[in-house]
Amino acid sequence: MRTKAKASARARAAAAALLRKARIPVTAAEIEAMEITDLGLADIGRIGLEVIVYENNDRYCAKELVLLPRQICPEHRHPRVNGRNPGKKETFRCRYGEVYLYVAGERTPRPRARVARTYKPFLTVWHEIVLRPGDQYTLPPDTLHWFQAGDKGAVVSEFSTTSTDGNDGFSEPRVPRGK
Amino acid sequence: MRTKAKASARARAAAAALLRKARIPVTAAEIEAMEITDLGLADIGRIGLEVIVYENNDRYCAKELVLLPRQICPEHRHPRVNGRNPGKKETFRCRYGEVYLYVAGERTPRPRARVARTYKPFLTVWHEIVLRPGDQYTLPPDTLHWFQAGDKGAVVSEFSTTSTDGNDGFSEPRVPRGK
Repeated sequence: MRTKAKASARARAAAAALLRKARIPVTAAEIEAMEITDLGLADIGRIGLEVIVYENNDRYCAKELVLLPRQICPEHRHPRVNGRNPGKKETFRCRYGEVYLYVAGERTPRPRARVARTYKPFLTVWHEIVLRPGDQYTLPPDTLHWFQAGDKGAVVSEFSTTSTDGNDGFSEPRVPRGK
Repeated sequence: MRTKAKASARARAAAAALLRKARIPVTAAEIEAMEITDLGLADIGRIGLEVIVYENNDRYCAKELVLLPRQICPEHRHPRVNGRNPGKKETFRCRYGEVYLYVAGERTPRPRARVARTYKPFLTVWHEIVLRPGDQYTLPPDTLHWFQAGDKGAVVSEFSTTSTDGNDGFSEPRVPRGK
């Protein structure tokens, strides 16, 4: 567990440095409260996410997502919550770096993502959307997606409906829960 | 009308310059589509707003608000839309400059805002909240508010429920409609 705590501290410091590079002002309290998640895979340098939740109320949500260089947020979807909520809808807007976003559709011939063999079986959608600073993409609810940062890392603003991570469905069976 | 078109073009150029200063990447198409509104008061240097709408769908909304130096967004509220929608709820997050936000509550003794006499009668709430880069504030639906940028101007991210401007109620009777 000491190793995990160290990896998490390193990821937090690297994410804070990326936010500074991106010139995105955040408070010291926000850096401290930043969610550092390896999704239970204990390989945060390759798979994971650093998240500042600006606001998450019962109507909308806004976050800053930080991806370390080549870090992957693995494939998942936000399924229907109940009769009135068809699932989380979300807009990704790239603020810094490059993001390679993958959704269902025609497989992109030479995708920019670089993925270790161990994770390939759990990345099933390969239609690539490249997001550079100022580009954005809106995902309908309940659709599979995953993404990877380019070589410099990336900062992505996420605008969405209410976030209920525990509800998410991941393709990677080793992810213990929706987080 | 030529004067109005010129004032609008000047405001667009000044807003684009502020976004560059704030290091917020936007596309050329977004600058072109930016909403420049003087709220019908033909005094955009003092009262008005420049807005890039990143996303506004039936569930959530995200915008970048640009305020020129000392520009005021006049007092208004977002009232109940229907039985299921109690009105727009919104979070303001300061990205650049300083914003003086006023809401109902105890009147702040020496407020930072500077307001021309002609507009004072229509600014009725004077509880001040100062937002600097990294600071944010969430407004409940249907509550009066107005705000002014400091001397450098300001850029503010707005995260909210769906935006339906035509529904807004302004305190200034000369504002012809909810825009």
